[in-house]
Amino acid sequence: MTRVVSRNPATGVERELDVTETRPGDVVELADRAARMALDYAKRPLQWRAALLREMADELESDAANLVALALDETALGQARLEGELRRTAFQLRFFADVVEDGAFLHASIDHAKDSPMGPLPDLRRMRVPLGPVGVFGSSNFPFAFSVPGGDTASALAAGCPVVIKAHPAHPATSQACFDALVRGARKGGAPEGLLALVFGFDAGIALVDAPSISAVGFTGSVPAGRALWSRANARPNPIPFFGELGSANPLVVTPGAAKDRGDEIARGVAASMTLGVGQFCTKPGLLFIPQDPSGDVLVTSLVDSLRELSSMTMLSEGVAENFRSGTVTIAGVDGNHRLVGGDGDGTNVTPQLFEVPAAVFADASSRALREECFGPLAIVIRYLNRDDLSNALASADAALTFSVFTSAADDDASWLIEFAQTKAGRVVANGFPTGVGVSWSMQHGGPWPAATSASATSVGASGIDRWLRPVTYQSVPEDLLPEALRDDNPLDVAQRVDGVVH
Amino acid sequence: MTRVVSRNPATGVERELDVTETRPGDVVELADRAARMALDYAKRPLQWRAALLREMADELESDAANLVALALDETALGQARLEGELRRTAFQLRFFADVVEDGAFLHASIDHAKDSPMGPLPDLRRMRVPLGPVGVFGSSNFPFAFSVPGGDTASALAAGCPVVIKAHPAHPATSQACFDALVRGARKGGAPEGLLALVFGFDAGIALVDAPSISAVGFTGSVPAGRALWSRANARPNPIPFFGELGSANPLVVTPGAAKDRGDEIARGVAASMTLGVGQFCTKPGLLFIPQDPSGDVLVTSLVDSLRELSSMTMLSEGVAENFRSGTVTIAGVDGNHRLVGGDGDGTNVTPQLFEVPAAVFADASSRALREECFGPLAIVIRYLNRDDLSNALASADAALTFSVFTSAADDDASWLIEFAQTKAGRVVANGFPTGVGVSWSMQHGGPWPAATSASATSVGASGIDRWLRPVTYQSVPEDLLPEALRDDNPLDVAQRVDGVVH
Repeated sequence: MTRVVSRNPATGVERELDVTETRPGDVVELADRAARMALDYAKRPLQWRAALLREMADELESDAANLVALALDETALGQARLEGELRRTAFQLRFFADVVEDGAFLHASIDHAKDSPMGPLPDLRRMRVPLGPVGVFGSSNFPFAFSVPGGDTASALAAGCPVVIKAHPAHPATSQACFDALVRGARKGGAPEGLLALVFGFDAGIALVDAPSISAVGFTGSVPAGRALWSRANARPNPIPFFGELGSANPLVVTPGAAKDRGDEIARGVAASMTLGVGQFCTKPGLLFIPQDPSGDVLVTSLVDSLRELSSMTMLSEGVAENFRSGTVTIAGVDGNHRLVGGDGDGTNVTPQLFEVPAAVFADASSRALREECFGPLAIVIRYLNRDDLSNALASADAALTFSVFTSAADDDASWLIEFAQTKAGRVVANGFPTGVGVSWSMQHGGPWPAATSASATSVGASGIDRWLRPVTYQSVPEDLLPEALRDDNPLDVAQRVDGVVH
Repeated sequence: MTRVVSRNPATGVERELDVTETRPGDVVELADRAARMALDYAKRPLQWRAALLREMADELESDAANLVALALDETALGQARLEGELRRTAFQLRFFADVVEDGAFLHASIDHAKDSPMGPLPDLRRMRVPLGPVGVFGSSNFPFAFSVPGGDTASALAAGCPVVIKAHPAHPATSQACFDALVRGARKGGAPEGLLALVFGFDAGIALVDAPSISAVGFTGSVPAGRALWSRANARPNPIPFFGELGSANPLVVTPGAAKDRGDEIARGVAASMTLGVGQFCTKPGLLFIPQDPSGDVLVTSLVDSLRELSSMTMLSEGVAENFRSGTVTIAGVDGNHRLVGGDGDGTNVTPQLFEVPAAVFADASSRALREECFGPLAIVIRYLNRDDLSNALASADAALTFSVFTSAADDDASWLIEFAQTKAGRVVANGFPTGVGVSWSMQHGGPWPAATSASATSVGASGIDRWLRPVTYQSVPEDLLPEALRDDNPLDVAQRVDGVVH
């Protein structure tokens, strides 16, 4: 039995935890246990389910000092950031409690029997039901918000699905302590045993995707890891949905008007956004499209100055830092691309990196490496001559999670840029930075491949619940055997579409 | 250039059509053409899009006599059935026009800027946008409703996506004539060129899934063909969603009470349902769970008598008939299974087939062949001793499109059966037959694998439109640059969720 090791990336100090890597057979058994209680959980009243999520939020907050200390030791992400992330994570659980109580996520629809041009139609009623046990993969870069107690777990529980969570090896002690808090909340809420499980280790992750009782997977991480696990989910005898929120090289366009009006302000903002959390955000603006004109020159100079003011930074792990350094070397090797800001580093320490390339070079097929995400504090300035040059370069970029556009009141580029942006990304940001991802009804965090494995899904916001549901139609089923959400008297008081009209 | 051949399955007469199989390069070009006009089409007003769908419905109906004659020649499905199917197909286009006008499919949501426990949140607005060009694969068994002018085409056009349709080789002349009618409707509606394209041939189908400009695929057909194309869609450099409505062995359970009350009536209904359209319905009840008691014996005897009264039937093609005969041989070879009704056939002619097996044998791993769909007029009677015997056998069955339950007022099996059924199927039918699939707001036609590649999707009903959309969030985008559906003054008068409350 391999003991799980917790490592401090800043100091290199390691300690063995009192848990072992989970054997694949045990992963299968935990998933089976979840499947056995899934229907019981799914049938509990919505109000009860909402209260359960709030209990879990309370337990996380009660243990906040301990959880933040553990995460600080394991991630080096900083006290203020981690405290904020934990608040956000508790808020997210409570937000999903609201989503559950709202009930619209059920998509309840009732068509009473009637005649039609195709002859008589029977009574048809449709709603969404939980898929069953969900496998959740915690991320490295958000030890709370996209890990054990994060959005995938919260939305799956909200949908009525038990979860089996694979802890990320970058923060196992934080993962275990968060899990313990969720379990305390589950017990206080009176949840059936088996609602939550936590597994550790690479092999356990593989076993989780393969486990016959797992109905769907939520994943946040890199394109290669995500694509490998997604392929595995598809290769099962019964393939299951795999919702991977993968990497993203996020474009940020500054129009000539905006560069002229407030280039310096934008440059300072970009420097802060691209280095936030040591650039370890999937929404980091990595592709900066700046006009090749005097105002653009001023903006780039200001960006260079802002980045040079920053000291070296500690990444999440040596592996992440190694990937960053090798990514930097690959990018530096692209012909026609040159470095504006750089520096060495070692171990987990790195320094911000900035490159510059003409738009025409960026758009060339040989510059593929520039268009792929480099996870960390790195961005590429792409200098464009005019609208055609810009639009050619943008067209060559991959789809992304976010697409930011800085415009001025005077210029007429805003309209086509916003229209173009929505073809390339899940979120279009006007005159702002993409790195904050608010938990709300209207948030979309996802995008076309390779930003995510499913462009129709989101891993943040109310619609995250959609991933764990599937519709069922009940035809001519007597009222007393129907789920409550589909009864004529609507005892749950949820939104119902009745004979085509929403009530 | 290979000429496309139309074949009459009843007479074997063949004729060359005035069209050739589409070269893969031409498929790519048609998809590229669709991509070039996609944004223009997506931006047209909803009212205009709805009117376009109604023009297409009108054109289909104007040409009804010709279309039905062509389909009768190519499918042998019968005049009345084909007339009804064409009416249904025109109705479906008009129904999707209503869905477009309703506008709720956009999922418009507006969160105004506000403070939150995580600090200030920007203005966030989310709606769904069309994916882009959709590839549609026509089915063999519904030359109208699930082919060129069918549900995939109608829902994709409704979503705002152009379509490139692959005609099924079983009815190419019908496909071409239906396509011509759609094009006439598109012209009358003033649609941009390139909205619709039709391709022929096996290689063209492969090229369609691979074409870089195709954003998603809709498919109706067998599990092997669907799985192969789905894998191909996943193997692209940028994988695309593939919505396959595949095969299904649909369970139908008769409780002891129902068998006693009205066994004869149920038996006649089953005989009609399992042979409707020569059993070439994906919703055909193929697994009949009947109690092993005297009432069950009477039911089975009545079913046997009903089937023996039927004469031989013409299947859609020799290939389909050959598959049916080889499937019958495989099923007959399962130990413990015996034939109740059978007979020979040749060419496209077949006779109904009925088998009987004890529930315990059906549940055994060695009986796998009994649990797979056999496309055609064949069913397997599974005799069960008691509830445990039944529930073991049901648990061994694959997920399905439909699950039918016949109960009596007296028995207490209805509750657990309905609850179990919704874990196994996309549609649960009480005291009725699954073969009719009404086009309505509340229809679900899909189910967990292997019934469909995506359990959350439906290929019939209003929610079919969901497949061709993805959400986009607009952050801090000025009012005049927002899509109309997301403006505060709601000029389209669509359902909007505003600050969490639906209006």
